[in-house]
Amino acid sequence: MNVLLVYAHPEPKSLNGSLKDFAVKRLEAAGHQVQVSDLYAMDWKASLDADDSFGRPADARFDPSQDSKRAFKEGRQRQDIVLEQEKLLWADTVILQFPLWWFSMPAILKGWVERVYAYGFAYGVGEHSDARWGDRYGEGTLAGKRAMLIVTTGGWESHYSPRGINGPIDDVLFPIQHGVLFYPGFDVLPPFVIYRTSRMDEARFSATCEALGQRLDDLWETAPIAFRPQNSGAYDIPQLTLRDEIAADQTGFAAHIKQATHSL
Amino acid sequence: MNVLLVYAHPEPKSLNGSLKDFAVKRLEAAGHQVQVSDLYAMDWKASLDADDSFGRPADARFDPSQDSKRAFKEGRQRQDIVLEQEKLLWADTVILQFPLWWFSMPAILKGWVERVYAYGFAYGVGEHSDARWGDRYGEGTLAGKRAMLIVTTGGWESHYSPRGINGPIDDVLFPIQHGVLFYPGFDVLPPFVIYRTSRMDEARFSATCEALGQRLDDLWETAPIAFRPQNSGAYDIPQLTLRDEIAADQTGFAAHIKQATHSL
Repeated sequence: MNVLLVYAHPEPKSLNGSLKDFAVKRLEAAGHQVQVSDLYAMDWKASLDADDSFGRPADARFDPSQDSKRAFKEGRQRQDIVLEQEKLLWADTVILQFPLWWFSMPAILKGWVERVYAYGFAYGVGEHSDARWGDRYGEGTLAGKRAMLIVTTGGWESHYSPRGINGPIDDVLFPIQHGVLFYPGFDVLPPFVIYRTSRMDEARFSATCEALGQRLDDLWETAPIAFRPQNSGAYDIPQLTLRDEIAADQTGFAAHIKQATHSL
Repeated sequence: MNVLLVYAHPEPKSLNGSLKDFAVKRLEAAGHQVQVSDLYAMDWKASLDADDSFGRPADARFDPSQDSKRAFKEGRQRQDIVLEQEKLLWADTVILQFPLWWFSMPAILKGWVERVYAYGFAYGVGEHSDARWGDRYGEGTLAGKRAMLIVTTGGWESHYSPRGINGPIDDVLFPIQHGVLFYPGFDVLPPFVIYRTSRMDEARFSATCEALGQRLDDLWETAPIAFRPQNSGAYDIPQLTLRDEIAADQTGFAAHIKQATHSL
């Protein structure tokens, strides 16, 4: 299998750096092909702007989505963007690894999403009408591939528990797991989260690697998060609200995940 | 009053650009002092890295928070960071204005948060012990100031409604409003959100400006979102989970907002 690891930490000699090295070795030892996009090492351009395509008139008004659409369609995207899109198409599984900074991904990784996720590639795919709202949330260019987050955070697990002050980790990560990964079609595996990173000694690091290694061994058997596909009848279109009979009376992020049915 | 507008859109001749110009004029006409941090125009450095402080040994291992702490304490921060911190201290109200890209702020603005929010300035403030978990979530350097988001999005309002496929807008913005703004002390006003930006004609633009103008006129009278302060008894410390009697049985982001009490 082909695995793309998109990695965003500025220091190779960090916990994240060590975990990344471990993950690559583990995957390669299992016979997988691995590519790493080490965004800091690549000096990745974080800010989406008019320079992301070439051949556009210098005085033309820049429209982030329309310019992206034209550049993608006409082959006028910057080469760094094209290369990352090719890696995504090559991969069977994509792992995003990053420290949680201010309750989201680092800017350099956010900028990777914004620039690589072109109109026509990751959004604006498929028929858009009042009867069909594109191929997204379970369909799209990246459908059939798997994705997973590896996230480190200084906070304690309890701070991210259902009643923890930072909000539940599943909700904190929802805009990424549902909005960035499920949106263009990925099946999203449960995240691998490492809390309280300041308390990492050798024994805990070993145990963390063991647990991560198991997750990597199980990449192709792990059940994805059961996000509801947009175009399978759960949503009214074009309002894109859950139909009354789906998760009746439930609101919020969790309503977009199918619950296991309990039979008698 | 002093207002800082932190603005993140690459095209001056965009809807965001027009709304920014309108907001500045409206605030100045009301007699306020306004500073704008136009991040794209400033060519803001988005990625946090070892170059954010000077005077550190070239071969030293870079630790994002410990390096930030030392640089802030010892006056070795890059000048672009210092200038933004000074603007934050100067401001009575801070407005963040941006298009919602992939369910969060643009990378360039995320990088402004990561770099300007130094250790000792926006986090790591106050006593940290098992009895007190710092001055944050309602206390901190920026306490007593107000903050508000102005956000544009292509999606429809129903897509961000309580049962909408993108998740409720209050939850989508929670990591920013609670995690980025309330955390260092801001009182956070309800956001001003403009949906379905592709359908913006002159009449709707006028109505939008009128509504935004009213919000700007009312900046100092609008009631903030009632996020629960960390250190006022609602949370157990150091677990930082809501005490059993607070929002009993409630979980998720909304539990961290005080509900209006209903008297008989």
